[in-house]
Amino acid sequence: MLPAAQFAMAAADLHHRTPEFRALYQRVLGQLRTFVGTQNDVVLLTSSGTGAMEASVANLTSPGDRVLVLTAGKFGERWTALAKAFGCQPDVVSAPYGETFSMEAVRAALREDTRAVYMQATETSTGVRHDVRAVAELLRSTGSGAVLVVDAITGLGTTHLDMDAWGVDVLIGGSQKAVMIPPGLAYLAASERAWQRMETTKNPRYYFDLRKERKAASKGESAYTPGVALIAALGAALDYIAAQEGGDLARGRASLVENAETCAAMTRAAVPALGMRLFAPSAPAAAVTAVLPPQGVDSGVIVKELKSRFGAIVTNGQGEMKGQLFRIAHLGFFDPLDTLALLGAIEQVTADSLPASKFALGDALTAAQRVFAERSHAASSTARVEAAMAGR
Amino acid sequence: MLPAAQFAMAAADLHHRTPEFRALYQRVLGQLRTFVGTQNDVVLLTSSGTGAMEASVANLTSPGDRVLVLTAGKFGERWTALAKAFGCQPDVVSAPYGETFSMEAVRAALREDTRAVYMQATETSTGVRHDVRAVAELLRSTGSGAVLVVDAITGLGTTHLDMDAWGVDVLIGGSQKAVMIPPGLAYLAASERAWQRMETTKNPRYYFDLRKERKAASKGESAYTPGVALIAALGAALDYIAAQEGGDLARGRASLVENAETCAAMTRAAVPALGMRLFAPSAPAAAVTAVLPPQGVDSGVIVKELKSRFGAIVTNGQGEMKGQLFRIAHLGFFDPLDTLALLGAIEQVTADSLPASKFALGDALTAAQRVFAERSHAASSTARVEAAMAGR
Repeated sequence: MLPAAQFAMAAADLHHRTPEFRALYQRVLGQLRTFVGTQNDVVLLTSSGTGAMEASVANLTSPGDRVLVLTAGKFGERWTALAKAFGCQPDVVSAPYGETFSMEAVRAALREDTRAVYMQATETSTGVRHDVRAVAELLRSTGSGAVLVVDAITGLGTTHLDMDAWGVDVLIGGSQKAVMIPPGLAYLAASERAWQRMETTKNPRYYFDLRKERKAASKGESAYTPGVALIAALGAALDYIAAQEGGDLARGRASLVENAETCAAMTRAAVPALGMRLFAPSAPAAAVTAVLPPQGVDSGVIVKELKSRFGAIVTNGQGEMKGQLFRIAHLGFFDPLDTLALLGAIEQVTADSLPASKFALGDALTAAQRVFAERSHAASSTARVEAAMAGR
Repeated sequence: MLPAAQFAMAAADLHHRTPEFRALYQRVLGQLRTFVGTQNDVVLLTSSGTGAMEASVANLTSPGDRVLVLTAGKFGERWTALAKAFGCQPDVVSAPYGETFSMEAVRAALREDTRAVYMQATETSTGVRHDVRAVAELLRSTGSGAVLVVDAITGLGTTHLDMDAWGVDVLIGGSQKAVMIPPGLAYLAASERAWQRMETTKNPRYYFDLRKERKAASKGESAYTPGVALIAALGAALDYIAAQEGGDLARGRASLVENAETCAAMTRAAVPALGMRLFAPSAPAAAVTAVLPPQGVDSGVIVKELKSRFGAIVTNGQGEMKGQLFRIAHLGFFDPLDTLALLGAIEQVTADSLPASKFALGDALTAAQRVFAERSHAASSTARVEAAMAGR
């Protein structure tokens, strides 16, 4: 957790129906708009990210609605389960774990009566990046009436996203990823088209009623008791991100994205030198890199060893992928030097399980160092942030 | 906020899919069972209390179900709104604000096909205590098949409640009231009858799917990303409450209830001496006392003056009661001496608005002091805690 956020959270001993809280809340909602990179209204929910995913189904659909889910992992499957829970008929375009879906398949599955398209910006369970821009363009070019809903819980702050220019209708973020505070808050930006859709949909919603939150937010309040301490932490985290770029939060976000891209590229270069393979080589996300351990090695052993010997946290595969892969996050201010340190730890842990002919200490670090140097020399820091802001 | 909880929250920098978090989570769920005072399974939700209220409707009803709502204020009305949002047909027994409903009216409104009864233990908007035990007895004695759901968000830790002995099916608590940590968590205990009901109900639920949470909890996990920092704070707060009674959390809860009863009785005795009136004299809750200011005085002015002159927080009326009354909370370790201090502040603020013939500085404090002394002498501290545990 970001220390500035820790202190803000512990100090946030204020009642939510006070001018002090209203001032905080309005400030944070404004910051979120900048952080998401949109002119659309943003609402904040006291729940984890799945609550905002549910809100995007409950508010935008009616029972019986045809929706399209694009999925290639655990979080994509969550959209299907949510759509079914709310009585929708989901058409599903799926790709194997570790890959992304083809635009041809999306085009073929899109129907005239598709009311909404649900996808992830990055699939956290496999470390894959999906092409949000291409899906948005497809919807626009076909004149589809479907709203496009993007779970960017790990995507925001790790991936260039331009909600307004691309025409994304709903973009969802969480508190515990690139913004580096504990889980318990979700936020969501919605386009005018999405807000209008909510006027006619029939699915039940109460705690996650987005129109009610939007109305309350316009008065600087939340509809229900908000997660006050986490909201204070979120404000402090966004201040911190802005401060890294002279107080400019949009640049701060671009700088986070550029940082994640660098760490992810370093990690990808290091993986073969570890005698391991990338799980998602064709469409890797910068948010997280999924790694296949050497044949016959349980990924859980690597996760445990890193934890017990070095206090280093990587996560095991989810569900049936448990034991098959481990995942290295590149979120927030986990930077290139932290990446080197973690790769060093992985080298140490791996050394015991591979024959010397297949593995030499330092090779993974060397590969990562070269990528770091190349990216550093390729452009000045300023130019790199500008490039990240433009999505290059 | 409780300082022990502040520190625990700031220090809780742990990932939720780790043995450390599982140990914390299981420990807190066990503590909550004791704090609620039940053998039933308890689940924890990352949301504010309204999320648990929604869960109690979404999980226990099907569209078209007849339910009975007992209401006498803003939070009672929330049950009606929730029931309607989820397609139920609510029968409503209501009492005027400031009063509780009669058991005759409840008996008359209870139908053979009533599937659930929704009520508050204490109505925070008016400071009224409802008779949960009598409603539970009515349901039992009439052989009703309805499940009884009680919002005890401000009731827990301020009011004697015996879920299992009385036969309450669902009891709901929050994090920001008597347990003294910031909002953002809700918890809910459910009887076997309630768990069974959830197997057949048809309303949509996903984020608030209680069966999924129960199953995950049995493995020491939450179904979705949990509010880690707040959970650590909750554990520390419950530790603190237990520590006040030698590590016995059940006694700690009884001691909280006894403390709230004393503070509330002191406040009620003081109100006439302030030239003011109690809003709910017939069924006052110990959680909060609602006070009618002198004729012609806007309660908002009193709220503001207390804040600006003394940094003392009382809350205004909600909705149409704004300006009509103010509310003094008796939650957590806000104790008799704090109550004296607050009453002293109210005397100072009131002195300017009332003629000397109607008001004398010190009178309210004197009245409160007498109640405090009487209650202190009436029984030893130990005997009072025992009495509170037995609900006397």
